[in-house]
Amino acid sequence: MRLSARNRLKGKIVEVTKGQTTAHVRIDVNGTIVTAAITNESVDELGLKVGMGAYAVVKASDVMVGVD
Amino acid sequence: MRLSARNRLKGKIVEVTKGQTTAHVRIDVNGTIVTAAITNESVDELGLKVGMGAYAVVKASDVMVGVD
Amino acid sequence: MRLSARNRLKGKIVEVTKGQTTAHVRIDVNGTIVTAAITNESVDELGLKVGMGAYAVVKASDVMVGVD
Amino acid sequence: MRLSARNRLKGKIVEVTKGQTTAHVRIDVNGTIVTAAITNESVDELGLKVGMGAYAVVKASDVMVGVD
Amino acid sequence: MRLSARNRLKGKIVEVTKGQTTAHVRIDVNGTIVTAAITNESVDELGLKVGMGAYAVVKASDVMVGVD
Amino acid sequence: MRLSARNRLKGKIVEVTKGQTTAHVRIDVNGTIVTAAITNESVDELGLKVGMGAYAVVKASDVMVGVD
Repeated sequence: MRLSARNRLKGKIVEVTKGQTTAHVRIDVNGTIVTAAITNESVDELGLKVGMGAYAVVKASDVMVGVD
Repeated sequence: MRLSARNRLKGKIVEVTKGQTTAHVRIDVNGTIVTAAITNESVDELGLKVGMGAYAVVKASDVMVGVD
Repeated sequence: MRLSARNRLKGKIVEVTKGQTTAHVRIDVNGTIVTAAITNESVDELGLKVGMGAYAVVKASDVMVGVD
Repeated sequence: MRLSARNRLKGKIVEVTKGQTTAHVRIDVNGTIVTAAITNESVDELGLKVGMGAYAVVKASDVMVGVD
Repeated sequence: MRLSARNRLKGKIVEVTKGQTTAHVRIDVNGTIVTAAITNESVDELGLKVGMGAYAVVKASDVMVGVD
Repeated sequence: MRLSARNRLKGKIVEVTKGQTTAHVRIDVNGTIVTAAITNESVDELGLKVGMGAYAVVKASDVMVGVD
């Protein structure tokens, strides 16, 4: 499926932590860690594991801009 | 202000396009373009311009995971 | 790409309205109209047009529950 | 209260799973399961239970579009 | 309709600005201005006008925490 | 860091509840309780505790409008 979400950052999964309903998946994107909070079911369905290649995907309306 | 949002991707602004209410700001993060849809007022208040350093900031609950 | 987002509602596009930066795409899902606010660029890149089959895709953390 | 959120999908609750803070509520909407991740407090306050009629409510800016 | 969204801030509308698709509605909540970016259609359907009482409604997963 | 997010509501933290991955932080904003669902890691990193001053921060595109 091709998706409207603009932002896809390629990296490698470095941590998968499941809670009771919500999991945190950490993806190393060129040395920056991106954290995704997704459902445990998504982790199981996609078979997410440390060491796998993965994309952090974000809709443009969910991106803020910060400046120093 | 220090913020709870987990994800901060450092880059450089490569495009600022204002609509009537919503602006699109494109940030080059290590060669990947990240698009942020923010208000025109934020663009003005932060003085966002092409060439400036900036961060794409995303809350963990707004990050999805994709796999090939 | 397989995606962690839990919710995919299949339907047919019944309206595409572009603004200056943000487009509204309306999808008929079993007789209920679902409105998506996405970037004009996504509309162009995916070639979205009235009459096409499409999915409304929503992350679980963006779904609220209402009761009468 | 009348709400600006554009999308209301009517269905029936088929599963309620509470975690320590976050609950997953699954709603059958015409045969498609929609998952909502909401707070445990909302589940209690609204008295959400399997078999109840309910709406999945989503803001237009949180809907993406996918095509095959 | 009763809604799972946890946060309802009562105030008065002080500005309504329509773009081509997206409107900005500003609500004065005890002296703090809250900006909502919603569809033009919602503004029309709810009849939003300067001077009306209104609530800013936010899902808990969309609230970040900042500290000085 | 200065941030594009339009909405900052100043208050005092009245409750911090950690789950296994997701925490709920409740902030009293002029007598209205605002609930934020954030990661446990953010709670630790910012040192969030009952009694601290804090801001509820919300992107404009995540604010809905309700009317009675």
